Amino acid sequence: MSENFDAVDVIAAKRDKLPLRKEQIDWVIDAYTRGVVADEQMSALAMAIFLNGMSREEIKHWTAAMIASGKRMDFGSLSRPTSDKHSTGGVGDKITLPLAPLVAVYGVAVPQLSGRGLGHTGGTLDKLESIPGWQASLSNDAMLRQLDEIGAVICAAGAGLAPADKKLYALRDVTSTVEAIPLIASSIMSKKIAEGTGSLVLDVKVGSGAFMKTVEQARELARTMVDLGTDAGVKTVALLTDMSTPLGLTAGNALEVQESVDVLAGGGPADVVELTVALAREMLTAAGKSDVDPAEALRNGRAMDVWRKMISAQGGDPSATLPVATDTEVITADNSGVLQRLDALAVGVAAWRLGAGRARKEDPVQAGAGVVIHAKPGDRVTAGQPLLTLHTDTPDRFARAAEALQGAWSIGESAQDTTPLIIDRIA
Amino acid sequence: MSENFDAVDVIAAKRDKLPLRKEQIDWVIDAYTRGVVADEQMSALAMAIFLNGMSREEIKHWTAAMIASGKRMDFGSLSRPTSDKHSTGGVGDKITLPLAPLVAVYGVAVPQLSGRGLGHTGGTLDKLESIPGWQASLSNDAMLRQLDEIGAVICAAGAGLAPADKKLYALRDVTSTVEAIPLIASSIMSKKIAEGTGSLVLDVKVGSGAFMKTVEQARELARTMVDLGTDAGVKTVALLTDMSTPLGLTAGNALEVQESVDVLAGGGPADVVELTVALAREMLTAAGKSDVDPAEALRNGRAMDVWRKMISAQGGDPSATLPVATDTEVITADNSGVLQRLDALAVGVAAWRLGAGRARKEDPVQAGAGVVIHAKPGDRVTAGQPLLTLHTDTPDRFARAAEALQGAWSIGESAQDTTPLIIDRIA
Repeated sequence: MSENFDAVDVIAAKRDKLPLRKEQIDWVIDAYTRGVVADEQMSALAMAIFLNGMSREEIKHWTAAMIASGKRMDFGSLSRPTSDKHSTGGVGDKITLPLAPLVAVYGVAVPQLSGRGLGHTGGTLDKLESIPGWQASLSNDAMLRQLDEIGAVICAAGAGLAPADKKLYALRDVTSTVEAIPLIASSIMSKKIAEGTGSLVLDVKVGSGAFMKTVEQARELARTMVDLGTDAGVKTVALLTDMSTPLGLTAGNALEVQESVDVLAGGGPADVVELTVALAREMLTAAGKSDVDPAEALRNGRAMDVWRKMISAQGGDPSATLPVATDTEVITADNSGVLQRLDALAVGVAAWRLGAGRARKEDPVQAGAGVVIHAKPGDRVTAGQPLLTLHTDTPDRFARAAEALQGAWSIGESAQDTTPLIIDRIA
Repeated sequence: MSENFDAVDVIAAKRDKLPLRKEQIDWVIDAYTRGVVADEQMSALAMAIFLNGMSREEIKHWTAAMIASGKRMDFGSLSRPTSDKHSTGGVGDKITLPLAPLVAVYGVAVPQLSGRGLGHTGGTLDKLESIPGWQASLSNDAMLRQLDEIGAVICAAGAGLAPADKKLYALRDVTSTVEAIPLIASSIMSKKIAEGTGSLVLDVKVGSGAFMKTVEQARELARTMVDLGTDAGVKTVALLTDMSTPLGLTAGNALEVQESVDVLAGGGPADVVELTVALAREMLTAAGKSDVDPAEALRNGRAMDVWRKMISAQGGDPSATLPVATDTEVITADNSGVLQRLDALAVGVAAWRLGAGRARKEDPVQAGAGVVIHAKPGDRVTAGQPLLTLHTDTPDRFARAAEALQGAWSIGESAQDTTPLIIDRIA
C-alpha cells in the first residue's frame, strides 16, 4: 500500500465529481482506520460522497477496502449451508427473532451478528437482553458450535469485522452523512461479506419509519446492495417492504420478544407472520432448499423448539416471565370510523422516548418500555376505544411520548388504499 | 444565545439546500469557537457550503458571527483616515511593500495586518522578515503609535480578531474546502471588518496562480466581498487583476523585498509599478484624497522615506544587505522567438519547492530562495539565453523545482494576446 496519496487530494477529487480510483479508496480507508486520515477529513469526504454520489465501481472498491480493514470469518467448517438476513431497520421490526430459528429448522445455519438500537429503531440485541440471563457476547468458537448444533445464533458482532465501518458509522452519525445510499450500502455489505455468509436476504424498508422514504430510493439501495453481494460471491436477494406503519402490534424490547414468541407458537399478528415466512422462504431458496414450506414449522412447534434451544444456549431462560414496565397510559380514539394510517416514525419516536431506545450509544434501555398498538390501518375503531398503550418505568416521559404521537394517525369514513407489506423483490 | 440547536440539524439543513437562519449561523460559529461543535462537524458543514453555496444574507450573517467571535479594533483615535488593501494572493505579489508607505505619504494611515505564506503564494511577513532585525509582532499600542507617527504599519494580525475564522481556516486547509466563494469572502472580510479600517481596496487575482481561475469566479468573489464591506459600513472597492503570469520579475522573500525597494526608488518592473499606483489611487480616493498623483511619490523619494521609517520602527535595518541564497541554477530558452506565456502557478510552486514557502505552517522558510525571471510574456528571446534563475540554500531541491516548471512557458513566432493587468473594477 503506497503512501503517495494525500487526503486533501482524495477529498478534492470527490468534491469535484471525479471518480475515486481503487488505489485512492484503499489508501483513504486504510489511513483512516490507522488514524492517519483525521475524522475532520473523513467527514468532509463523506459529505462530498453524500452530495456527489459514487459509481458502482467506487462503491465496490469502498466496500472491499472496509472489509480489508479487519478480519473475515469463515463458515466453511460447518456441516450446513449458511444464510443470513439483514433489515435496514424499522419500527416494531422483530422479524429476526422468529426467523432465525424457523430457517434453522430446515438444516440451514443462520448466523445473525446483530447490533444495538440507536434512535427510533430498536436493536435486536436490546430486545433479546430483556430475556433473563441471555448473553449477547459469544466467542467465535461458541458461535460456530451453536451454529453446528442448533443452527441459529443471534449475537453481538465482534469488533474485528470491518473496523473502518465502525469508525465511519460513528462519524456519519454526528455529521449528517448517514442517509447516503453508497455509504449505507457499503456499511451493511462490508459487515455481511466479512462475516462470510453463503447467502443473504435483505429486507429494505420503505416509508416514514425507515431511512428510505420513497420506493425509488429503497429500490436503488436494494439494487446497490444486491450488486455488491453478487460481485463478492454472496448469493443476495432483497425484498422491499412497507414501513409506513409499525410491523405487528408492539414496539419495545420485551414487548417485541413476547410478540415473537406468539408467532413461534403459531399465532401473532398477520403482518409479522407474513414477513417472517416470506423472508424464510427467500433464505431457504438461497441456501438450496426451495422445496419446503416454512409456515409449517410455525404451526407444528419445530421453530419454537429451536428458539428455546437457541435462547438457552446463550444463558437465557425461555420460560422466564418477561419484564413489564411499572406504568402505563392509554391513548384512545377521539372519534369513530376507520383507522386510515398510523405513522411508523411517530410510534418509533414515542417508544424511544418512553425508554425503549437510546439517544447515545452508552445509554441504557428499559426492557419493559414501549408502545402496544390496539388498532392497525384498515381497522374500524369507536370513539373512546384504546388505540395505543404507552409503557415505561419513568412516567415523567409520557408527556414527550404523547407529543411525538400528535397527528400520528387519522380516522376517516373509509379505509384508504394501503401499500402491500411486500412491495417488490430484487435479485 | 440559545442552546436549542444541534450541529447535526444545521449540517443537514445546508446539505439539503435549505437556507441557514441567522440564529443557526450565530449558534454554530459560537459553538465551534467554544469547541462544542466538533471539527468533524464543521468540516462536513464546510463541504456542504462548498457544494451547495450560501445566499448573500447567509454570507452576511456568517461574516458577522465570525466577527462576533473575537475582539474588534478601533482606529477612531487616529488623526488620519485609514485605508487598507487586501490581495487574494498571487505569485510575486509584493505590492503591499511599496504600497503601504506610498499611500501613507499622503496622510492616510495604512494598517496592514498580514499573514505568513502557505503553499505556492508567499506571505508578506515572510518577505519582510528577510530584512535583518525586522519584527512582525507589535503590541496594539505600538501599532497605533506607528500609524499616527509614520502612517504605515505591516505587522502580524493579533490572535484576537475573528478567532472563529482562524480555527475554520486551518480546518478548511486540510479538508479541501478552501476555494469556496462564501467561505473565502467571509474569511477575508471578517478580519478586515473586525480590524476597523475606514476603507478597503481588494485586489482579487484571476488566473493560474490565483484561487480564482476564471474572471467569472473572481468577479463573483469581488462582488460578494464588496457587498459584505458595504453592508458593514466599510467603503470597499475591488480590482480584478491578472495572475496568469507572476507579478514583476521575482518570486521569493528577499528577492521580492529588493524588487519592492527598486520600485520605491522610482524603478522596478512596469507591472509592479502600474498595480502599486492603481491600488494607491483607489485607497487614496476611498480615504477622500482623489486629487493627488501617487506616481509622484515614487519618483521623488517620499515613499522611500516612509518605507525606511516603517522598517526602522519595527527594528529592521533598511540599509542592510539582504540575504542571498548559496546556490543558483539557470534555466535557458530552448529555442528563439517570442515568449508567449510564463505560468504563474508553476513559478510559484518552483519558488515554494526551492524553500521560499512552506508546506506546513510550522515549517521555516529560506530568506534567499526563489525564482528570478529574465523574460516576461511578449518579450523576444534567443535560444540559450537565461529565462529563469533558481535560488536556494539547499541545492538538492533544484530537480523538483525544475520539474514544477516543465511546460510552464511557450516560445512561438509571435506574441499572443495577453490579458491586461487590471481586468475590471467593482465598486
